[in-house]
Amino acid sequence: MASDAEALAVALAEARAGRAEGGIPIGAALVVDGTVLAVGRNRRVQDGSPILHGETDCLANAGRLPASVYGRATMVTTLSPCDMCTGAILLYGIPRVVIGENRTFYGGEDLLRSRGVEVVVLDDPACVTLMNDFIAAEPTLWNEDIGEE
Amino acid sequence: MASDAEALAVALAEARAGRAEGGIPIGAALVVDGTVLAVGRNRRVQDGSPILHGETDCLANAGRLPASVYGRATMVTTLSPCDMCTGAILLYGIPRVVIGENRTFYGGEDLLRSRGVEVVVLDDPACVTLMNDFIAAEPTLWNEDIGEE
Repeated sequence: MASDAEALAVALAEARAGRAEGGIPIGAALVVDGTVLAVGRNRRVQDGSPILHGETDCLANAGRLPASVYGRATMVTTLSPCDMCTGAILLYGIPRVVIGENRTFYGGEDLLRSRGVEVVVLDDPACVTLMNDFIAAEPTLWNEDIGEE
Repeated sequence: MASDAEALAVALAEARAGRAEGGIPIGAALVVDGTVLAVGRNRRVQDGSPILHGETDCLANAGRLPASVYGRATMVTTLSPCDMCTGAILLYGIPRVVIGENRTFYGGEDLLRSRGVEVVVLDDPACVTLMNDFIAAEPTLWNEDIGEE
């Protein structure tokens, strides 16, 4: 059984792998019944895609799932989810989201909570450091990813 | 210069092409400065992907764009956008959405308007018929696409 901290470690490894590829260091893991069903990472740079964020890449890697599986899932992500990823979580009725940190970016947490999703913020220092280092090194790329540049 | 009706015709052609492939008949077009910059269609069946809806496939096909381009864009879609596609539109600050119809599905239009997006509903009979025929023929597939089955 993967605890939230263990699942976050898996997501963080995805984020770091993405950074090592020259990408944006955000990773995610989809946990169902205590098992990591799929992982993903931001692939804007690697695949030239504006829709492959950590969470959406993870959902894509998980493939087509019945609603009953999404309904037992937790989305674990290193960073507070953007509007798109928030919407993907809502579309599939994922009831629980675990967030590594929301200091460097605050996404759709309020909307998730207003729609009944449980949101847990772990405030993980390693996630914060990874994003702070990335944003300092690549501010233009970061702003592109959040639609601001 | 593509009018809203002309751009919807392009999106509808995408939707019909998707249906001909055995897929879910929802299409989209991204219009910038009066020109169709990219098109897309739901690819759940074709690519086995839960994140390639009409609008997100269209954004993926458009590739990485600067915020200044999204800021002049209109997203034209045959069907009211789901939560995920609503979030993608908000993430990139697309200021205008043209919807073929919202009779068979009512998505994130209220959220879009509350965030300042102009939403135009054309209530196009051909879009309604296409979806009604599809939903009648493939109710399980349709419910999967909106996270309900």
